[in-house]
Parts: sequence; C-alpha cells; structure tokens
Amino acid sequence: MAKVRVAIVGASGYAGEELIRLLTVHPNVDLRIITSRQNAGKEISEIFPRFFGMDLKFSAPDVARIAAECDAAFLALPHGLASEYAIPLMEAGVRVFDISADFRLRSTAKYKEYYGKEHPAPELLKKAVYGSPERYREQIRNAAFIACPGCYPTSIILAVAPLLKAGLVSTKNIIVASMSGVTGAGRKVDLPYIFPECNESIRAYGAVGHRHLPEIEQELAVAAGVGEMAVNFIPHLAPMNRGINSTIILDPTEQFSKEAVTEAYKNAYGNEEFVKVLPMGKLPDTKHVTMTNRCEIGYVYDSHTNKLLVFSVIDNLTKGAAGQAVQCMNIRFGMEENLGLR
Amino acid sequence: MAKVRVAIVGASGYAGEELIRLLTVHPNVDLRIITSRQNAGKEISEIFPRFFGMDLKFSAPDVARIAAECDAAFLALPHGLASEYAIPLMEAGVRVFDISADFRLRSTAKYKEYYGKEHPAPELLKKAVYGSPERYREQIRNAAFIACPGCYPTSIILAVAPLLKAGLVSTKNIIVASMSGVTGAGRKVDLPYIFPECNESIRAYGAVGHRHLPEIEQELAVAAGVGEMAVNFIPHLAPMNRGINSTIILDPTEQFSKEAVTEAYKNAYGNEEFVKVLPMGKLPDTKHVTMTNRCEIGYVYDSHTNKLLVFSVIDNLTKGAAGQAVQCMNIRFGMEENLGLR
Amino acid sequence: MAKVRVAIVGASGYAGEELIRLLTVHPNVDLRIITSRQNAGKEISEIFPRFFGMDLKFSAPDVARIAAECDAAFLALPHGLASEYAIPLMEAGVRVFDISADFRLRSTAKYKEYYGKEHPAPELLKKAVYGSPERYREQIRNAAFIACPGCYPTSIILAVAPLLKAGLVSTKNIIVASMSGVTGAGRKVDLPYIFPECNESIRAYGAVGHRHLPEIEQELAVAAGVGEMAVNFIPHLAPMNRGINSTIILDPTEQFSKEAVTEAYKNAYGNEEFVKVLPMGKLPDTKHVTMTNRCEIGYVYDSHTNKLLVFSVIDNLTKGAAGQAVQCMNIRFGMEENLGLR
Amino acid sequence: MAKVRVAIVGASGYAGEELIRLLTVHPNVDLRIITSRQNAGKEISEIFPRFFGMDLKFSAPDVARIAAECDAAFLALPHGLASEYAIPLMEAGVRVFDISADFRLRSTAKYKEYYGKEHPAPELLKKAVYGSPERYREQIRNAAFIACPGCYPTSIILAVAPLLKAGLVSTKNIIVASMSGVTGAGRKVDLPYIFPECNESIRAYGAVGHRHLPEIEQELAVAAGVGEMAVNFIPHLAPMNRGINSTIILDPTEQFSKEAVTEAYKNAYGNEEFVKVLPMGKLPDTKHVTMTNRCEIGYVYDSHTNKLLVFSVIDNLTKGAAGQAVQCMNIRFGMEENLGLR
Repeated sequence: MAKVRVAIVGASGYAGEELIRLLTVHPNVDLRIITSRQNAGKEISEIFPRFFGMDLKFSAPDVARIAAECDAAFLALPHGLASEYAIPLMEAGVRVFDISADFRLRSTAKYKEYYGKEHPAPELLKKAVYGSPERYREQIRNAAFIACPGCYPTSIILAVAPLLKAGLVSTKNIIVASMSGVTGAGRKVDLPYIFPECNESIRAYGAVGHRHLPEIEQELAVAAGVGEMAVNFIPHLAPMNRGINSTIILDPTEQFSKEAVTEAYKNAYGNEEFVKVLPMGKLPDTKHVTMTNRCEIGYVYDSHTNKLLVFSVIDNLTKGAAGQAVQCMNIRFGMEENLGLR
Repeated sequence: MAKVRVAIVGASGYAGEELIRLLTVHPNVDLRIITSRQNAGKEISEIFPRFFGMDLKFSAPDVARIAAECDAAFLALPHGLASEYAIPLMEAGVRVFDISADFRLRSTAKYKEYYGKEHPAPELLKKAVYGSPERYREQIRNAAFIACPGCYPTSIILAVAPLLKAGLVSTKNIIVASMSGVTGAGRKVDLPYIFPECNESIRAYGAVGHRHLPEIEQELAVAAGVGEMAVNFIPHLAPMNRGINSTIILDPTEQFSKEAVTEAYKNAYGNEEFVKVLPMGKLPDTKHVTMTNRCEIGYVYDSHTNKLLVFSVIDNLTKGAAGQAVQCMNIRFGMEENLGLR
Repeated sequence: MAKVRVAIVGASGYAGEELIRLLTVHPNVDLRIITSRQNAGKEISEIFPRFFGMDLKFSAPDVARIAAECDAAFLALPHGLASEYAIPLMEAGVRVFDISADFRLRSTAKYKEYYGKEHPAPELLKKAVYGSPERYREQIRNAAFIACPGCYPTSIILAVAPLLKAGLVSTKNIIVASMSGVTGAGRKVDLPYIFPECNESIRAYGAVGHRHLPEIEQELAVAAGVGEMAVNFIPHLAPMNRGINSTIILDPTEQFSKEAVTEAYKNAYGNEEFVKVLPMGKLPDTKHVTMTNRCEIGYVYDSHTNKLLVFSVIDNLTKGAAGQAVQCMNIRFGMEENLGLR
Repeated sequence: MAKVRVAIVGASGYAGEELIRLLTVHPNVDLRIITSRQNAGKEISEIFPRFFGMDLKFSAPDVARIAAECDAAFLALPHGLASEYAIPLMEAGVRVFDISADFRLRSTAKYKEYYGKEHPAPELLKKAVYGSPERYREQIRNAAFIACPGCYPTSIILAVAPLLKAGLVSTKNIIVASMSGVTGAGRKVDLPYIFPECNESIRAYGAVGHRHLPEIEQELAVAAGVGEMAVNFIPHLAPMNRGINSTIILDPTEQFSKEAVTEAYKNAYGNEEFVKVLPMGKLPDTKHVTMTNRCEIGYVYDSHTNKLLVFSVIDNLTKGAAGQAVQCMNIRFGMEENLGLR
C-alpha cells in the first residue's frame, strides 16, 4: 500500500510537536510538509530540539504545494484560520484533519457566543465530521473534513455519552471538574504559565463559559437524544506537563443500576483499543495514559448521596489532540486504526 | 506576660514538623518538650534537617513530665492514641490541642463507621471543642480540649458554612472536588507516594467514604441547622508539596442572590485575618496561601446552570493543621490571635 | 527604638516580592513605599496575590518622597538603573541596599566586559560595600551604600572563601557546578521559562562567561589574597521554584588536612546564625533551607582523587537576595542581625 | 524473519517496566515470558497500570521454561542474582542481556571493593561483553552474554571516551557532576524518595565511591589506553521522573584543539543514530531525549580557565537501561539496530 503523503499546517505549538512525533514514526505515512508562518525556513529541531538529527524543515504555508503533493493535511492553526486552508485543500481532494476549534460546533450561534465573532465558514460546518472515532467511525471513513475534538471534551464525552445514550443518568445536574497539565494551554508565553507561577500551585480557571463547554454540551445532547443541555464544566491547571483528569458527578435515572453502567460501557467500548474502562471502584490516574492514545475511565456509585461518580483520564496532546487526529486519518485511509499509535 | 510552656507529642510527621516550625519562632511560646516514641533521644534535625543548628531533641513521651512543665500540649499522634495522653494532661490542667481525627466527630456511631472501631473515649468527646476559630472562637476561649479540624474539612467548611447558615444554598446536592499536595498523605513511606508515582500524575482516591467526610457533613449540618447531611467529597492527589484547593458546586435556594452571598461572606469573615474572600468572579490559587495560615475563598454564579461555584484554598499543613492549632492556642491563652502566624 | 522607615524601589519581580514578604513582618520596620514604574497605582496584591488583604499599593518611583520619608531604601531594579536612585538617596542620607548587580564588581573593566557597557557610576563604586555580612560585617555597619551579592555568588563565596583564606585549597582549578530553581531567572516571561519547558528538564546554561562569574572570582581572590583568579562556574536550571545547590571541587594544598578544613569553617562560621556547616561527610539539600536566610555547607574529602568536595545550599531569593539584604539592613541600623529573619 | 522469542526476568522495577513498554511494541519480538518472584500470577497491569488491557501476566522465574521457549532473556534482577539465571540460560543457547551491575566490572577486586562481597561468578565475567553498542558493536554481534551499562556511566562514557581515545584531554582531573531523575533510584519505597522529600529539592549523594564509579573509570581507561584512572563522579538527585545530565570538566592536552574535538566526535558518532553531538557551544537538555534511546552531547571550550566542558544527556531508563539493552538485542540478532527504538 502506498504511503499516505501528509502535511502539517501550523506546527509550532505542542499539538504540532506531538503530530510530528507521531507522524515521523508512523509506518505508513510520508510526512512531506510541515508549515509555520513564523518559523518558515528553520530546522524543525531549532523549534523542537527533541527532533535534532531529523532532516526536517518548516516551510511557509503553501496551499497549492500541499494540494499537489499530499493526500492528507493536519491543521494545527489558531482559531479562525482553518477554513482558509481547508476549503481549497478539500477542493483539491486532500483530506483535512483540523485540530483547531473552528468546526467542532454545529451551531454558528454558539460559535459566535463563545468565540465572539461570526463563524468564518458556515457552509463548511455542514460537511465537518466530529473526529471522535469511538462515536463517529463510519462518518469518518468517508469524510472530507474532520474536526478533531478538544482535549477536555474528549475526556468528558467518552465517559458520559454511553450513559446518557443508555438513559442511565440524567441530562440535568451534570458536574465536571477537570484538571489539566500545562501543555493544555499551548506553548503560550505568558506570565500565568511560567514555571514559578504553575509549580506548587493548583487553580481553577474559566469556571463559567469555557470555550470547550458548548462542544461538550453539543455532543452529550446528541448522545442523550435531546436538543439542548447545560453542563457545569470547571477546568483546573495542575503542575504537570501532560494529562487531563475529568471527575464527573452524575444523577442516576430510574433505569440506573450498577450492572447497567458496566453493560453500557462494555457495549460502547468492549471492542475499542483506545478506550479502556476499569473495573467498578478502581480509579484511573493520568500518568497511566501519558504518551498514549488511550482514554481510561473509572466509575463508582455513591449510595450515600445517590450519585454516579465517573473519572476519565487522557493525555491531552495525544488522545486529546494529535493522537486522535492520527487515529482519524488511519480510519479515513483504510489503515489499521492503531497504526503508529501503539 | 509569661510565655506559654508547650509540648508537642508525637512530632515525627509533616504536621509535627510544621508545629515545630511555627512554635520555635512564636514570640510568646517556650517550646519545652517534643516527643516521639520512635525517635526519642535523637536531635530534631536528624529527622527534620531544616532545623539544623537548633538545640532540640526528641524525648520519649512522658505524661507526668509534660503535666509538670507545660501549660499546653499539641497532640500529633496516629488515630486512636490521643485520649491516652489527653485525659491525664487535662486532669493536670494542661490545655490540649489535638490535631488527630479522634475527637472531631460528635457521633461515636459515625466514628465507628468510618474508623472501624469503637471510639476510645466517648466521655471526652463531650468536652471537645471543634478548633475552628472562625466558627467556635468563644468556645475555644474556655475549652480544656480542642479537636483541631482536618485539612480538607477546613477548606470546605469555611467556604460553605456561611452560605448554609444564611439559607442561600441547598443542603442537598453539595459536590466537592478537592485537590491536595502530597504532604496531605503524611510522611508516609508507601509505593503510591514515592516521587515517580506522584509526579506528572493527578488522580482521585477515596471518592466514596473518605474519613474526612463525616466531619464535613457534621459541621455543615450544624451551620445549616439540620440534623443530617449527605455530601459528595472527592479528593485528588496533585503533584505538589503543599496546598489544598476545594472546588464546590452548590444549588442556590430561593433566597439566593449574588449580593446575598457577598453579604454572607462579609458577615462571616469581614473581620477575620485568616479567611479572605476574593471579589466575586476571581478564583483563588493554592500558591498564594502556602506557608500561611490563610484560607482564600472565591465564588462565581453560573446562570447557565443555576449553580453557585465556590473555590477555597489553604495550606494543608498550616491553616489545615498546625497553624490553625496555634491559632486556637493563641485564643485559648488570651494572646493576639495572629501571634506567630503572620 | 523607632522603626526604620523603608522603601522598596522596583518591586515587581520575585526578589521584590520576597522583600515585601520579609519587610511586612519585620518587627522593627515601617514599610512605607513600594515603587514600580509599570504597576504604579495598583494594589500590591494585584501583582502578588499572596499579599491579598494587605493595604499596600505600588507608587511611581519618587526620589524626593523616599528621601523625605525613609531611612532605608532597597533597590530591586534592572541592571544599570541603580545609580540613578542611589546617588540622590545617599545624598539625602538614606541608606541604600542594592540587590541589582551594578555595584558588586570593583573593576569597571570587568563590568564592561560582562555587561557590555560602561559602568554607569564609577565614583559610587568606591563607596559600595559588598553586602556579605559574614565577610564584611564591620564595613556594613558604617556603609552608606551596600551592594548585595548575587545568589550564585553567595552560595559559592561562603563555601570557598574560608578555605582559600586558610590556604587549604588551591586558587587554581576551582570547579563549580550550580543548580538553581527557576525563580533565579526572575519573573521573566520568556519561552525557556514556561512550565512545560522547565518541568521534567535539567539543563546547563551560560557555562562560559556567566555574569555572576567575575563577582565570584573577585571575592575569592580577596579571600585568597591574590590579585586575580579564574574559576569554572557552570549553572544549571532545575525544575523547582527556589533553591541553589553549588557543588564545588577543590584542589588541596600542602597545608590541607580534613581537620584544618573543619577548623577553618569553625573559625569562619562558628558564631554565625545564618551559615551552618554540616559534619564532614554529610551533604546538604536545598529543601532544608528554602524560605530561610540560611546557607548550609557540607564537605567531604575524596582520597581516591585527592579533591575536596564542597556543597553549599541557599534559598536564592532569601539568603541569595532579599534575606541577605535585610540582614545587612539589620546590621546597618544596629538591630539584632536576625530580626525578621528567623 | 522469525520473531525473537523473549523473556524478561525480574521485571517489577522501572527498568523492567521500560523493557515491557519497548518489547511489547517491538515489531520483531515475541514477548513470551515476564517473571517476578514476588508478583508471580498477577496481571502485569496490576503492578504497572499503564499496561491495562494487555493480556500479560507475571510468572514465577523458571529457567527451564525460558530455555525451552525463548531465544533471548533480559535480566533485570537485584545485584548478585544474575549469574544464577545467566549460566543455565547461556548453556541452553539463550542470549542473555543483563541490566544489573553484576558483570560490568572486569575486575573482581573492584567488584568486591564496591559491592562488599565476592563476585558471584568470576568465570562468567570473562565472557561478558559490555553492552555499549557505540563502543563494542562487533563484540556484541557474537556475544552470548551482554552486560548492559549503568545509566550514569552511559552518559559519561559516551561523552568522554572519544576525547580520551584521540588524546585530546587528560586522563587526570576529570570531574563529573551528574543530575538524575528519581526513577534512577529504582522503584524504591524509602523515605528519601517519597514525593515531598524529592520535590522542590536538589541534593548531591554518594559523592565519593558511588557504585557506578569503577565502571566509569574502567571504560574511560580502556578508551585512553591506560591501566587505571581516577575520576570524580558526583551524582545529584533532581525533582523529575526521567533524565540524566552529566556535566563534565576536562583538562585539554597539548594535542587539543576545538576542531580536533569536533572531529573526534564526528569520527565516533557521525554514523550513529543514537548519539547526537550538538554544534559547539550549544548545550543539551534532558527533556529533549526523554522517552528516546538517544544520547545528546554538547561541548564548549572555556579559554578563561583552559577547560573543555562537556554535557551529556540521556533518558536513564531508555538509553541508560532498557533501550540500550534492546539496541544490543537488535545487534545480536542481526536486526536493524533501531528496530522498536524510534
């Protein structure tokens, strides 16, 4: 089988670095083009010294060249820029995997509410498939444009959607407290992210109206089969590089039983390589999934308060960004889904 | 004013170390006796090298000597041992400040449920005052025995009690996700606490039935004026030395308004030196309170879900243990409450 | 005794924060003025939330006002700016404690070599006393201007000077490998200092020609009674907030004996509160001195290679900057040397 | 090509975990047997939850079964136990890769001096090849028994040996200050290694007579073509999980020139995939090599002191242990040297 010829567009952040890490060792990928407007002409290793010794350079983004030379393009651009590349690339037949937030929301109104501007390409929204393989595998197989989920949403949706779908937990009163490593903020040079401000610290932020919230609500509503949902999503910054833990508190419905939860997870993920559900009562730990494409889910029922507690951990850069995007590419190009991701 | 002559009983853990740190520089304390069964005869600095150069030794615990030489005794013993020292010391007129969990619960039944054995001294329970100065200052002034609160409970009770007392939030559906630094586990030599198992990791534990839960429920029920309460308390271990953040999700009642919350906190803590409430919408950070005896509280109302979100941070070893105990001593002996704690 | 009225000029970095921390609780200091050009008018707590609840504001720097209202001024300014404040303040009789690097070097040629520009005030250099209390206590008592040592130099000079003075180690072949926490870089918002770039990393930097080198060489040469010295000083950045460890390898002279080393240290520091020498063979640890004004020194002789190994630890912000400056102020104003520093 | 059938003997530490991580994804390995006396019968994931979902169990060590079923065995046993397994396995034709320290020293006298007991199998010593591929590749190709180097020695020998061999630096006066992450201490449950004792701390240990010293001296002496050498090796524990940085100070000889150093490194490593030498003056960082099998070397000449400064970083568990062992296996079995290691 011919190798998939790949471009990464806008690869100067941590998710871009993770894409490079994964795609340079992917046995069926030919990583041809890595673009960065600000770093064009530089060696990759000048920006990411981890890649010292690899013969790779950043080039300026050039849609025509990507269209001519590549089968797939990963977009790792700041908000609002994806469509500028996605539209001509799609027209040229290139499959596009966007890890920005631009095309994750179905609703242009929500986009405007949370991003403060009109959606840049509403017509493209209709074609976008949400790149969560465990939920949209069949659609991904044929998609021209795949909007890869955010890191927090991935950890939360994978944990809650099967329970909502099975009617075991209420759509109301869903509480999520998530804790993320600092790479989750991107390679951002800003006072709150320098080492002494993050180390020996844990703090909540964006507790109301975080930009990942509408994406979470949208996908949980789809799972529940309802029109709208309102969720409490409270992210925290933890002094570590990688990893997200989402702690989720849910109200059981009348159909709820512990066995039914176990069964719902088994149905959803029994055959999934990248989502593992721990035995009931066992809680996951971010460190067990860092540098992997795996989501681990634990759960326990609290009879004292009649709540179901669910815990979900991922590596924010892998299953939460680049790894999941590669998983989507594998599906889209008919390769084994775990290629380059074990 | 004569100095208060003080003993620390059982000082080989981190809370003991913090007591030594605070009491050796307290301007009105004469730290006479520091006991440790296992380390008797050793220099303090052999166990806690931070105190190198201080002329202090561990002695074997000797109740008669403490009774003869001291006005106050801090007990930093494992569960179940406090009464053995507390009873004879109290009979001898020594004021006792216990930072173990033995006398925090009013209910011997709850004690048995959570600690798996009969309470060792039920009669002493009736005399114990819960050492939360902001809530029981008057009782502390005259108490012979003060049971100092746990670290998680301190962060949670201070944040929630004023709101329950004012009737602004429901006694139902209280959700707490707390994150603690690793000293919260004590100076415990066990696989889960070695550096590589904690670093680059965040994980929930004890999500159902943690031993601090009944203490939280007891004090919140007192604040609410109800008999019983059931709370979800979900602790997490974070890769840092010190600090607890408690993120609390509350259901507003009909009396609720944002202004009323501000007012309730102002009433409760407007004159308190060691509890600071941030302006609404501003979230606290553990690093701003480490090595201090301060609790900082932030809050924000989420109109999207109609929840009140409250955030509370303390240093688990200071306001969460040793510092609060010293604050109680200051009150009990009629000293300025902040002496040795600024 | 009247309180010393104090100003801090340029207090928006970590050393400034540490000065505020120490001076607000110093029993004999009235902290009147805290200046910051960029933050003038803001609450201190807006920049350093740790000080929330204190009624302190940044003002614009105003030499006349400081001269009128203060007895002492601490300068925590970027390189090259100290003289602008120091000269008029000294003329007005204010004692000046400069924690910048401007006046630490006796040689204007060295200054130019390492800082790349002419010294801004060569005449003031002659009046400056090097603020290392254990070495220049008598001069500090009467100094109008005190140039407080750098953090790396403090750790190294205190460890090596007594041995050179006693002729026990060679002035040649001195090797120093130091490791510093990230606050040592200041509150610098730059890519190499964001959390994910520092965490899980250790790296050397500035291995040749670091700006602290000439200061180290100057003071060691004074101790040795020689004109010039050349030292290898190799700093490393370690993933922690505070603390410096300097590991120093020395060539014994013919006068060397292990007993003589012990004796030399005893002579130098036997009566010093803030320099502690561990028993031979015991190695120090930065964590035992963080948040203290103490330097701890360990040493061991390696007969296999005939080298003396010396290890020195301090808190870079306390004994390495703000604490040592306060110690100098205590001396200068005839107060107990440890006031506010225990 | 048939897969190499592999056993790991004694796999309950961090190096064992790393071997499992590497060998389970190695495309040409069939990992058949993983033994642990203490964990026999347990799922691998019970001890290393990272491997959750893999169908792997610990078995009790059974030499006969390994001999019957495997082509290669990795020994990750405590000191003194390797020969018990190595001898019968070798007799049965199994290739043995020992990552313990038992067979790294040529001299039984040195072994006794540093390990405090007679060498358990002196006759086997003669057959052992030191598993440093960049130095002994040809011998490894035909070896029956390969003693894989220690982590510190790997970082140091790779950096210094080419310079000694080329006669560019003196065999005298070699100073090494190394800093290691805490996994370097093994999965050891002991007070100095719990999180709060390691975090926010840097400390030297074993500064004289560390067990890795004779191994370093032996291999450097071989490189220099001399009988004996004495080196200063001073390890430090740094608050991170993985990574070693060795900072090395060397005395140039008369043959020395900067160009000759560049040339010597080019000759040694120009064609090596797993040793990369940075351009002169650029310093390496442990974080750029963690989770890789790569050693990175930087160097700079200090004309001020006439010293050559060399810096070498590796991941202690990969190039410093398991990865290098896998590299040896690849060579021994005629596979591509980087298989499973990219």
